Amino acid sequence: MPKKIRLGILGGGGDSLIGVLHRVASFINDNYTITGAVFNANYEENLAFAREIDVPTDRIYKDFDTLVEEEMKLPEEKRIQVCAVLTPNFLHFPMAKKLLDNGFHVICEKPMTTTYEEAKILRDAHKKAGTVFAVTHTYTGYPMVRQMREMIKAGELGKIHKVDARYYQGWINTIIHDKAKRSTVWRLDPKKAGISSCMGDIGVHAFNMVEYTTGLKVKSLLCDFNYLYADNQMDVDGTALIRMGDHVKGVIRASQVATGEENGLAIRIYGEKFGLLWEQENPNYLYKISDTEPMEVYKPGHTYNSALSLDGTKLPPGHPEGIFDSMANIYLGVARAIRGEKYNDGEFPTMNDGVRGLNFIEATVASHKGGNVWVELD
Amino acid sequence: MPKKIRLGILGGGGDSLIGVLHRVASFINDNYTITGAVFNANYEENLAFAREIDVPTDRIYKDFDTLVEEEMKLPEEKRIQVCAVLTPNFLHFPMAKKLLDNGFHVICEKPMTTTYEEAKILRDAHKKAGTVFAVTHTYTGYPMVRQMREMIKAGELGKIHKVDARYYQGWINTIIHDKAKRSTVWRLDPKKAGISSCMGDIGVHAFNMVEYTTGLKVKSLLCDFNYLYADNQMDVDGTALIRMGDHVKGVIRASQVATGEENGLAIRIYGEKFGLLWEQENPNYLYKISDTEPMEVYKPGHTYNSALSLDGTKLPPGHPEGIFDSMANIYLGVARAIRGEKYNDGEFPTMNDGVRGLNFIEATVASHKGGNVWVELD
Amino acid sequence: MPKKIRLGILGGGGDSLIGVLHRVASFINDNYTITGAVFNANYEENLAFAREIDVPTDRIYKDFDTLVEEEMKLPEEKRIQVCAVLTPNFLHFPMAKKLLDNGFHVICEKPMTTTYEEAKILRDAHKKAGTVFAVTHTYTGYPMVRQMREMIKAGELGKIHKVDARYYQGWINTIIHDKAKRSTVWRLDPKKAGISSCMGDIGVHAFNMVEYTTGLKVKSLLCDFNYLYADNQMDVDGTALIRMGDHVKGVIRASQVATGEENGLAIRIYGEKFGLLWEQENPNYLYKISDTEPMEVYKPGHTYNSALSLDGTKLPPGHPEGIFDSMANIYLGVARAIRGEKYNDGEFPTMNDGVRGLNFIEATVASHKGGNVWVELD
Amino acid sequence: MPKKIRLGILGGGGDSLIGVLHRVASFINDNYTITGAVFNANYEENLAFAREIDVPTDRIYKDFDTLVEEEMKLPEEKRIQVCAVLTPNFLHFPMAKKLLDNGFHVICEKPMTTTYEEAKILRDAHKKAGTVFAVTHTYTGYPMVRQMREMIKAGELGKIHKVDARYYQGWINTIIHDKAKRSTVWRLDPKKAGISSCMGDIGVHAFNMVEYTTGLKVKSLLCDFNYLYADNQMDVDGTALIRMGDHVKGVIRASQVATGEENGLAIRIYGEKFGLLWEQENPNYLYKISDTEPMEVYKPGHTYNSALSLDGTKLPPGHPEGIFDSMANIYLGVARAIRGEKYNDGEFPTMNDGVRGLNFIEATVASHKGGNVWVELD
Repeated sequence: MPKKIRLGILGGGGDSLIGVLHRVASFINDNYTITGAVFNANYEENLAFAREIDVPTDRIYKDFDTLVEEEMKLPEEKRIQVCAVLTPNFLHFPMAKKLLDNGFHVICEKPMTTTYEEAKILRDAHKKAGTVFAVTHTYTGYPMVRQMREMIKAGELGKIHKVDARYYQGWINTIIHDKAKRSTVWRLDPKKAGISSCMGDIGVHAFNMVEYTTGLKVKSLLCDFNYLYADNQMDVDGTALIRMGDHVKGVIRASQVATGEENGLAIRIYGEKFGLLWEQENPNYLYKISDTEPMEVYKPGHTYNSALSLDGTKLPPGHPEGIFDSMANIYLGVARAIRGEKYNDGEFPTMNDGVRGLNFIEATVASHKGGNVWVELD
Repeated sequence: MPKKIRLGILGGGGDSLIGVLHRVASFINDNYTITGAVFNANYEENLAFAREIDVPTDRIYKDFDTLVEEEMKLPEEKRIQVCAVLTPNFLHFPMAKKLLDNGFHVICEKPMTTTYEEAKILRDAHKKAGTVFAVTHTYTGYPMVRQMREMIKAGELGKIHKVDARYYQGWINTIIHDKAKRSTVWRLDPKKAGISSCMGDIGVHAFNMVEYTTGLKVKSLLCDFNYLYADNQMDVDGTALIRMGDHVKGVIRASQVATGEENGLAIRIYGEKFGLLWEQENPNYLYKISDTEPMEVYKPGHTYNSALSLDGTKLPPGHPEGIFDSMANIYLGVARAIRGEKYNDGEFPTMNDGVRGLNFIEATVASHKGGNVWVELD
Repeated sequence: MPKKIRLGILGGGGDSLIGVLHRVASFINDNYTITGAVFNANYEENLAFAREIDVPTDRIYKDFDTLVEEEMKLPEEKRIQVCAVLTPNFLHFPMAKKLLDNGFHVICEKPMTTTYEEAKILRDAHKKAGTVFAVTHTYTGYPMVRQMREMIKAGELGKIHKVDARYYQGWINTIIHDKAKRSTVWRLDPKKAGISSCMGDIGVHAFNMVEYTTGLKVKSLLCDFNYLYADNQMDVDGTALIRMGDHVKGVIRASQVATGEENGLAIRIYGEKFGLLWEQENPNYLYKISDTEPMEVYKPGHTYNSALSLDGTKLPPGHPEGIFDSMANIYLGVARAIRGEKYNDGEFPTMNDGVRGLNFIEATVASHKGGNVWVELD
Repeated sequence: MPKKIRLGILGGGGDSLIGVLHRVASFINDNYTITGAVFNANYEENLAFAREIDVPTDRIYKDFDTLVEEEMKLPEEKRIQVCAVLTPNFLHFPMAKKLLDNGFHVICEKPMTTTYEEAKILRDAHKKAGTVFAVTHTYTGYPMVRQMREMIKAGELGKIHKVDARYYQGWINTIIHDKAKRSTVWRLDPKKAGISSCMGDIGVHAFNMVEYTTGLKVKSLLCDFNYLYADNQMDVDGTALIRMGDHVKGVIRASQVATGEENGLAIRIYGEKFGLLWEQENPNYLYKISDTEPMEVYKPGHTYNSALSLDGTKLPPGHPEGIFDSMANIYLGVARAIRGEKYNDGEFPTMNDGVRGLNFIEATVASHKGGNVWVELD
């Protein structure tokens, strides 16, 4: 009978939304117990938060380095097994690196690092460590996204020849038009937020979805950004033409100024035989379209779904599960991997997804800044 | 800083879906810890399940009576505070009664009891106990259902004059047409499943939704059942005409043989000024319709929503939450009530909802068996 | 090569919406030419309207009797062949009767007559005349309604056991709450509008749809009306429990006070094997649902549709046709019948539909006024 | 009282779908009568078709030149006033040119010509003729497209900063994968079908929609085509990045190999204040989205719509009109223009739309062939 996995959490304290998402996801399948944490940079707030959510405070550390140091002193059977890295983006890399170097498993928020260079270093560290490493591209945990992947893998669509992914949000619209706001928000400050806003934050999810579902790789891209204002230095909108192989083309569209859009991730994949459509805001519907047959609508929990999809549904059809359940599916896969149990390679996004994400982000910036030229991905 | 509430669980072991739903719901807002349980009538399986989900086995009891007996020996600050009753329907009453008589808080699955008589006895016991009692009409925990209630309460629709609720499922269709199956399934055996199948299991949810959202009471009803086969003794489909006051009328439709329907709970409420539409399978959309203005679509998490609705949303708009989150909202309200914190009376369904549910179920049966006559509710 | 059919029009002048609908429907398939008419009771307006729409005025008559008299003087090859009766409801019967008695074909708006008694007299007259008689239950002309009928006829759903039809509108809501308005509007005056408002105007469409698609007959019903105000004498809302045979039950819901609803006709049919759902406001989608297979969505124009359905689509899939096209399909069927060409019995609603409609309307009134008792249909 | 306009038709005989669409559109508002035609290049078939649809054969001409010659002999009050040009694309230019040179009004199918050069010559001819010239971008006739235009014009969205248009079809998918088929179909033969398949046939509609609704002009574009096979010479898929002014960017996506898509034209427009979404396959819904307010759904026929929109709806809300009605709205606008009545400049697409369309098509080809470079539009 498997015991719960000892989970450490870095960041995610207070009102952090990402904190709630990971914590709940870890609980959902009875696999994890929060053993230690640095929820917050401020030690008092850190402790207070632990008390608020009723986590024992004896292994709430004053900072990340202390956590590693102290945990390494514990015998392996008591030690934190896996750490969830939910800190600001620029901390992902040093923390993940040190965790790997000390033999921990890691669940890392995206973007995995702030540069492609860091990502490759981390890949090397991971290779050496041999532990489990997951990047939380949350949306891949949805049962119908998994079903899409399995149907494509099984050849149901025939050869894929066109891909169209969109990730539209509107929230920066409420900031960008005010000069004072746009020049002070950390999100639009390249020194704080990295080289890309829109592509780095959401475009990369769309990119990952394209590769996750099709099993194909983006080989090159040509991208155009929109900054909206001359004094704004960060992309808030962008469109990337992509090539995924011989005569396989597509487009990735991302925006943070698509006024009124909430969290509009959507993907359309077209093969010789069928097309598949899916939208994140209605995640329990997968549309299989044909030139000659009635459209089919797949829903979670039905026995017609693949094993990978069914594994991610807890209740019978018609009981809508959501984004917490999607993230929980990723945590479930990680738990299996940590325990050395059998799992499918689609159960959670890996180091490879993280590396490719950074490759993509830097390529979009290079393409735009180079004058909308084609840029190869590795 | 609030400590986690000590939760006892009765039933819900093994593959029980209702078990997963309650357990996850209790975890989601960091409010509960599972302290003791009788997950299963078989003690070995009970223990095994506790180990599987990593609950300490020292307070896993061999049966319900032992649980009560042993827990009462513990000092109050260690004792289970609230029990979730997830056992077969006929056990709800005796367990809930004994729990109340011993001063426990109770979270009880629906239908609360198997007869209206029992329900009234339980109501008396609850009055005497003065503890918190919730009946898990899960769907009332959805943010947009709460929003519906608050909009109506605020008078946005004007005087309500028509209500239409539907709860259509198809699953008994896979059983009912086979004579051998339909005569052996416990669900269709009145001795085991009580006086009603369709109305007792799902019609009662639709009824509760009608009263929860409108704040009105069903005063009388006229019901017609469909048994599909002469040798079948349980309703698998039924329609109830309802009256909710002077010229306020409506209909409640329920079916377990609506072939292909999954969990089709939907409600339409019409007032003098506006109508409101909501469907459980797409729970994050609330439609406000008008004879003269564009339809408005409300979604969770937006600041235009009521406090009660917003309290039930954890992430920003566009991140779909589902049925686990809905149940978690009910658990959150119960936690507040147990701690004596302030809470809104729409945060969880109460004893009164349970009592009215049984009143409704028996009224539908009386109406049908009486030849489709009008039957008053208390 | 068929020549255009000579069409006479009674009523439908000026701003009449029903006039536009019929006129356009007659043009769409190049089958009719407007040869004569009494568009309006006022002769000057009648002539003016004819000029406005550029119909020659030589056969624009001062009244209906003159039209019949004068046309009968013409040789058969010049005479109006078919008359569309678009006058106020109480005129349908005398006009249709006289037209039949004089050997004309008739396209009659619904309700065919104002009483069941009249309907039966008209049926006799029709039997004697032997001409073509259509009642314009417009919605049966939609390709996906036809497809529904053909799929059921072919046994795809297995034995039908449940039917649910709804026709919700909200427009009387803008009138009914004002005492002065509700007591003066002709629609709510039984002397002018007949015995029923809601059931007579729209409930009868839902009833017809149920019988048209399933091929079954409603055998008995129990109905409850809502008048909303004690001084209002006409039903503005009603729900009818229906029985269509042994263990085949259903419900027909109609309302004119379903605030915010536009023209909400919808039907759900459940058989042992599959369910079918269709909604008038999105008429080009037919949903086939299953307990075990992905939902299928049928759309017009695809070769997978039945011949009857395909016959009603003019353009390739994805080019939405609407209500004018639906009515045009009925006109096309009538044209074929008039010319003695082969046609399918689902191409237009007939005298029998008209008679059954009146039987239904009177039964709902009798049931409600009798205290919500079961009333048999013939 | 206006008399019907004398309409001549070129092409559109036999099973021609475009023929049905134009003919019906001309009938719908009682404005046109078919006076003369060359339905077909074969004179016998031409005559037979006229007889089949019951058009008098005395002005059915053996060819286009004869039509012009003979009609010019007639006195102006008998002469055909306007000709609908429905012939193969390469004939649009010479026919439209000659018609203009002889003083006829013209309704021309799109693409208006096969080259931008021809388009500009035609523009000159039109300037000289001073008659009415319409290009049938059918989709601009939908009431909700008109409403979109009027809302934007009124400033409801604030400054537009992003546009996203899609036109996805799948039908070439059934041809392209078969080498024999793809090398013989005229559609994929540049000698017969012009320089572009996908952009020329449907991309141009999306382009027109963007300019029609926003009132902005596409200033430059960068386009990538997909030919799918090395031996295929015509684009069957393409994506164009567009710039519409200072920091106003967007994307136009078109495909004929988007497997399973039917006629998927859709447009999303984002301004500082609101976004607007519309899809051709559900043309009666216009979605107005906001970052802070509930989404609003506009539907045709409501008084909250603009005059331009309401002018294009014949029946009350909830009675779906479709593509024939949309084209009929264009014909209505043309009729008003021909009669010298007042009309709104959004009632029908003009010569200017035609010229811009060709400018767009050639720019996409130039961009792709030039190695995905930015190309300016005039």
